[in-house]
Amino acid sequence: MTKPLIHPSALVSPQAKLGGNVTVGPFTVIHENVHVGSGTRIDGYCELGYPTSLADGQPLIIGRDSVIRSHSVFYQGSHFGDGLVTGHRVTVREKTKAGKNLQIGTLCDIQGHCEIGDYVRFHSNVHIGQHSCIGNYVWIFPYVVLTNDPHPPSEVMLGVTIEDFVAIATMSIILPGVTVGKGALVGAHSSVSRDVAADTVVGGAPAKFICDTSKIKLKDGSNLSAYPWRKHFHRGYPEELVAAWIKEFS
Amino acid sequence: MTKPLIHPSALVSPQAKLGGNVTVGPFTVIHENVHVGSGTRIDGYCELGYPTSLADGQPLIIGRDSVIRSHSVFYQGSHFGDGLVTGHRVTVREKTKAGKNLQIGTLCDIQGHCEIGDYVRFHSNVHIGQHSCIGNYVWIFPYVVLTNDPHPPSEVMLGVTIEDFVAIATMSIILPGVTVGKGALVGAHSSVSRDVAADTVVGGAPAKFICDTSKIKLKDGSNLSAYPWRKHFHRGYPEELVAAWIKEFS
Amino acid sequence: MTKPLIHPSALVSPQAKLGGNVTVGPFTVIHENVHVGSGTRIDGYCELGYPTSLADGQPLIIGRDSVIRSHSVFYQGSHFGDGLVTGHRVTVREKTKAGKNLQIGTLCDIQGHCEIGDYVRFHSNVHIGQHSCIGNYVWIFPYVVLTNDPHPPSEVMLGVTIEDFVAIATMSIILPGVTVGKGALVGAHSSVSRDVAADTVVGGAPAKFICDTSKIKLKDGSNLSAYPWRKHFHRGYPEELVAAWIKEFS
Repeated sequence: MTKPLIHPSALVSPQAKLGGNVTVGPFTVIHENVHVGSGTRIDGYCELGYPTSLADGQPLIIGRDSVIRSHSVFYQGSHFGDGLVTGHRVTVREKTKAGKNLQIGTLCDIQGHCEIGDYVRFHSNVHIGQHSCIGNYVWIFPYVVLTNDPHPPSEVMLGVTIEDFVAIATMSIILPGVTVGKGALVGAHSSVSRDVAADTVVGGAPAKFICDTSKIKLKDGSNLSAYPWRKHFHRGYPEELVAAWIKEFS
Repeated sequence: MTKPLIHPSALVSPQAKLGGNVTVGPFTVIHENVHVGSGTRIDGYCELGYPTSLADGQPLIIGRDSVIRSHSVFYQGSHFGDGLVTGHRVTVREKTKAGKNLQIGTLCDIQGHCEIGDYVRFHSNVHIGQHSCIGNYVWIFPYVVLTNDPHPPSEVMLGVTIEDFVAIATMSIILPGVTVGKGALVGAHSSVSRDVAADTVVGGAPAKFICDTSKIKLKDGSNLSAYPWRKHFHRGYPEELVAAWIKEFS
Repeated sequence: MTKPLIHPSALVSPQAKLGGNVTVGPFTVIHENVHVGSGTRIDGYCELGYPTSLADGQPLIIGRDSVIRSHSVFYQGSHFGDGLVTGHRVTVREKTKAGKNLQIGTLCDIQGHCEIGDYVRFHSNVHIGQHSCIGNYVWIFPYVVLTNDPHPPSEVMLGVTIEDFVAIATMSIILPGVTVGKGALVGAHSSVSRDVAADTVVGGAPAKFICDTSKIKLKDGSNLSAYPWRKHFHRGYPEELVAAWIKEFS
């Protein structure tokens, strides 16, 4: 196991636990209560393990073979599985619990106190409110907001639930307490105030049922259905998962 | 009075005036034309007093007991009362004049040339256009934009006015010259093109009258009205203010 | 020709090519595969030439007399004409090809693989999806998103086309494959799903025809038309261009 490669301008606490082959870029700060898995690359200008009393003393844990891009801030008290990849200037607060192979796009703002499954993809500038519960293989596109307060400002917090394989298109908001069912598609620029049934498309403000997802055809000349997307979209997923998805639909 | 505690990697102009017990984090730059009140904490990677000719030589003034979180940029020529608290990577331009206990969330972009009262809260990623005039105890939620140009691009600037106790929910825009009246609620994902009467709820695009705010019940099982919110929501306000609010409604 | 003025804390590769009078701020990183034109100012905390295999080894080229504000990230493999000006914390990925005098506002996120003409202005927090094609003298206002995937997630990429002199107002999205015609205005908070005819105003979600742009009057008491905006709005354009615009309408 190779020692971590830390840029001489970085400030890494001697108490931080860095695995083998970890690299730390210039001007990055790593506080004491941080564990970083082996093979992870941390760019410059990042701050990991940002102290907060709201973390109840828990460490920040980043899994193996991850990439944290520049200017990102991760608070103490969150936990990420292996293969995390972020864009630039992401902010992740305490008590975020995420599975493996999460992607967090540039400018995302994860408010903490939330659960995220495996192989979830947040594109740029996604806002995840506290108490959100997100399944596996979910896609959330730019400028989407998951809310939680039904009558702001208040002390009532109703997080949203996003089930497996859901896709939420650009600039949509999911209102407090709403569940978006497995495999559903939320059209762009929508405001979702009621639960969305599995494998359906909703759109508009307030969002209404448009059709079943199976009615949407791929715009590639094939006349095949665009959904469930796991039938045709496989970039970035491991071979065994893709094989299972192909088998599911054959 | 204790001397400021400046991280050795920070670059602080000898002309900057820092009060007692000020702390300055790693890699932060403080330019010469800056006054920081005592007890204020400035995180890393911040730039305070960013020079601009548009500030007419005026200093940046930050009140006492403030917290400026990492990667934030404040221009020369703005003035904040005591108790300012920011999230990460906020940008505040020249000629912003704000009262006490302002909170500015992560990624907010305050374009300057605006007025902000006391105890105002901007959640994450709020955009305050120039010539906005914001009262006291206002709440503005993520991805809200206050605009100013009625026919972009032009030289006509019609700022918006947000009166005391207003709450503007997620991803709404307020169009140029609009006034949102005292205690009103703008629903999420709205586009507000006309003045909003005090203590009413509007929503939609274009936003229309929905009901009086008193019709909205708290979703906590109490069957009490959710508005005026100062009847039940008191977190972060000083005791004497809360006592006055309770008395107002008893 | 004066030598570049590099802050002692900046990390500039000896292979980077910096023109005369270039200034580099504190804590900035410039990688090897970067060319910066003479007279350009680069603020602090920037990273230029961020390495990516997707750039096919091409350099980052920034034209003369440009200003890159703090905390910005530019990938390797993009090309900007002279007079580029950015706000703070902009992110620009590989294979962005832009003309002269581009302005990129604070928090903009340019995903790369796109073309941008001359004298284009992006206000704050604009998101330019891959395969966007943007003409000359275009204005794009805060929180606008140019999309590209007609049924996300998929491998089909249909970029949008924005023709010369178009203005897209705050918090609008342009859906995949749409063309917005020369001189058109997209109203605020719109979702544009169909092509927009030249010199027309569209608005709403989905956006519909409202009127010809010539019907919109300037709100400055003059009773003149607000569009084409180049008849009256000239700030920041060179004299000879303004003279040509005035002649066009006289």
